Amino acid sequence: MTHTHFPAPGAKKELEEGAVLTPRFDKDGLVACITTDAKDGTILMLAWMNAEALALTIETGVAHYWSRSRQGLWRKGDTSGQTQKVIAMHTDCDQDAILLSVEPGGDGGACHTGRRSCFYRRIERADNGTHLVFD
Amino acid sequence: MTHTHFPAPGAKKELEEGAVLTPRFDKDGLVACITTDAKDGTILMLAWMNAEALALTIETGVAHYWSRSRQGLWRKGDTSGQTQKVIAMHTDCDQDAILLSVEPGGDGGACHTGRRSCFYRRIERADNGTHLVFD
Repeated sequence: MTHTHFPAPGAKKELEEGAVLTPRFDKDGLVACITTDAKDGTILMLAWMNAEALALTIETGVAHYWSRSRQGLWRKGDTSGQTQKVIAMHTDCDQDAILLSVEPGGDGGACHTGRRSCFYRRIERADNGTHLVFD
Repeated sequence: MTHTHFPAPGAKKELEEGAVLTPRFDKDGLVACITTDAKDGTILMLAWMNAEALALTIETGVAHYWSRSRQGLWRKGDTSGQTQKVIAMHTDCDQDAILLSVEPGGDGGACHTGRRSCFYRRIERADNGTHLVFD
C-alpha cells in the first residue's frame, strides 16, 4: 500500500530549514518536477507529480508522474521503454518543486517526439518578432 | 509597450515542430520556468511566468517571473541584487515550460535563503521514513 499522506507544511522556517518532506501541492494537488540525466546534468523534461506519484517515486526508485493532459498517474517508460531510475532526488526551499536526477532506460531519451530532451528549441528574438530555433 | 499577446497554441504538430512561440499557459495563466546557471548548468530555481513576465524576459534579456505567493510580477534581483541576465532561453515540446540559462548578478546565488540554488536538500528514504538531508 502506497503511503501518500505527507505531513502538512509547517511554518516558513520548518519548510525551508527542516528535515521533513512536507510538499506544498498546488490547488490541483501537484508539484512541478524537473528531471535531469544523472550522467551529465542535461535537463530532460519538466513534468508534474501528485502525492501518489511522488510517494511511488520515493518508494520504488523509479520516476512516476501525473499527466495533466490525460489526468492520470504515469510510470514513465511503461509504453516508451524510457524508464527512469532515480539516482538522486531534491526538493526546493519552499517545497513546491522536485528535482530528479535519473538514469534513463530504453534509448536514453525522455521526449515523446524522439528527442533526448524536451527542450530542443531556443527562443530567439529578432527585429521581426520571436522565433523558435531548433538546437 | 510590452507585447504580451502570444499567438494561440495550434495543433500538436505546430506546437511540437513549429517555429512559433505559442506558450500554453495553464488556467492560472502561468508556465513553469526552470532557471540554470549558464556557467555550469547548475539548476538554480524553479519559478513561474505569466505572459507579461515571459514577454518582459524576452524583450529585456533579464529574467522576470510571476510570484504565486505575492500574486505579482517580479523582476528577479530588484531587492536581492541577484539579477539574472538571460544567456539562452528554450521552450519544451508542448510549450508549457521555459528553460532559462542565466548569468546571475549580485552574489551569484538565486535562493532567498542565501544559498546558491533552491535545491539544497536531498530526499532520502530510510527504514523509518523519508528525510531531507542538506547537501
